[in-house]
Amino acid sequence: MKINRLAILGLGLMGGSLALAAKKRGLVKEVVAWGRSEERLAKGKSLGVIDSYSLQLSEVIEGADIIVIATPVLHAERLIVELFSSYKTQAIVTDVGSTKGNLLNAVKVGAGYVPENLVLAHPIAGAETSGVEAATDSLYEHHRVIVTPTQETNTAALETITQLWQAVGAEVINMTVEQHDKVLAATSHLPHFLAYAIMDTLCSMENEQEVFRFAAGGFRDFTRIAKSSPSMWHDIALANKKALLESIDEFTDHLAQLRQAIAEENSDVLYSTLEHVAQTRKNLHDNVLPKKKNK
Amino acid sequence: MKINRLAILGLGLMGGSLALAAKKRGLVKEVVAWGRSEERLAKGKSLGVIDSYSLQLSEVIEGADIIVIATPVLHAERLIVELFSSYKTQAIVTDVGSTKGNLLNAVKVGAGYVPENLVLAHPIAGAETSGVEAATDSLYEHHRVIVTPTQETNTAALETITQLWQAVGAEVINMTVEQHDKVLAATSHLPHFLAYAIMDTLCSMENEQEVFRFAAGGFRDFTRIAKSSPSMWHDIALANKKALLESIDEFTDHLAQLRQAIAEENSDVLYSTLEHVAQTRKNLHDNVLPKKKNK
Repeated sequence: MKINRLAILGLGLMGGSLALAAKKRGLVKEVVAWGRSEERLAKGKSLGVIDSYSLQLSEVIEGADIIVIATPVLHAERLIVELFSSYKTQAIVTDVGSTKGNLLNAVKVGAGYVPENLVLAHPIAGAETSGVEAATDSLYEHHRVIVTPTQETNTAALETITQLWQAVGAEVINMTVEQHDKVLAATSHLPHFLAYAIMDTLCSMENEQEVFRFAAGGFRDFTRIAKSSPSMWHDIALANKKALLESIDEFTDHLAQLRQAIAEENSDVLYSTLEHVAQTRKNLHDNVLPKKKNK
Repeated sequence: MKINRLAILGLGLMGGSLALAAKKRGLVKEVVAWGRSEERLAKGKSLGVIDSYSLQLSEVIEGADIIVIATPVLHAERLIVELFSSYKTQAIVTDVGSTKGNLLNAVKVGAGYVPENLVLAHPIAGAETSGVEAATDSLYEHHRVIVTPTQETNTAALETITQLWQAVGAEVINMTVEQHDKVLAATSHLPHFLAYAIMDTLCSMENEQEVFRFAAGGFRDFTRIAKSSPSMWHDIALANKKALLESIDEFTDHLAQLRQAIAEENSDVLYSTLEHVAQTRKNLHDNVLPKKKNK
């Protein structure tokens, strides 16, 4: 594949890494970026992540074959409306965000239709680092990318976006927007909010600094994701509100069941639950979850 | 310090590592072990972890200076009663378990008094491995050990146990039994049951194997502790029931508050909560939590 002009809107770890990966593999002639911080854009250019940039959206999307929205997910809602409502862009538009339903809904409401040249995508990759300076050309290698075509999606546009992700080393899987948001709520958004909630619980204990002194390795790994960007996760929670609330409610029910087994000293239920989930988790470790190095 | 005869009751990772550490440092003349599995005891002897063993408790504790209870925590309740009720042992008795109140209560009720030669202890160390074959002489180095003397505890006995743990490289901290059980419920027992509960939640979703395919690195670290021994954590839950239920209830309240902020799209509350806990977690990482290698 050959892309003449790839436009990245929002230059951080995700967008920057896609730009670097596409450049390194010779998939793209020119990468241009738009953002709100000139400093960050200039940094991206000096690092060789992009070829040029502008603070004017119109200049960046002009003549682009593919436009990648790589801003935080709530900001992406406004951008997607602008692209299809004000500019009526004919480029293939995709994204790298953690939520999909909010973008589809935004464009439906804000532009009044579901564009055939819109192919939303979510690479299941990331790092504790952030910012364009953390971008690498290998971020997406051996990672999964969920692509969520709609009934309106043009087959050629879907094929182009699929080829792009495959070309940078990812495995592409199709899902509906609803499936995506539900699966991600359970496997990613819920764990983050549980980690935030346990930190919040411990922070409110008396002598909380004393309490934290006795936290061991299990606690460290369990709460690592509570270090994640507050603004990013604030946005994700609101963008995927419905599925996240459902996940929280299902979790709360299951925790209440475990609590009841403990309170009633119901050894059989308690042991069989722990045994089942421990075995499931062990099997995952071997067969399904990404290896340590590919986090 | 010099211990003539160290008796280990229950030969697994914790007891075996203490035996190896004491031997390597020349702290002990003889290590004997009791257990229910002759195979495991013979394995410990062939590995050089212990010098001799017996399936008869009386033979092992005979002449011991220090008796270390290193069985699962519910079994430890029965052993501690036997030691002080049937054998009226004069040796210093200690343990390595994750719960303290259940043992103190068991001896109070079962033997009718709180022995002055009882010094309960909890090394905050462990590994994903288990069994005497996983024992190492360095398990406790640079780890914290909580010791929980009571008003009845003999000063010399406390001093001996403190010196033993310091001699194998640990930092010793004193707490009351109640403090210990509350702090450990929050920092260790609660996270384990949250990890079990989220696995239980995902296991009950439709197409759960599909769902797990999209779990990323955050999920892997978050649920690592759900691989822990079901029988060990079944016992801990029942042994520390009161403090664990309180921790679960406090967590449930904090999760409900976060849920409410999301449901009401209360950006201020949501953002400030995430920001506060993310910052707290970042500070912990640098200052308080054990380093990765010492898990």
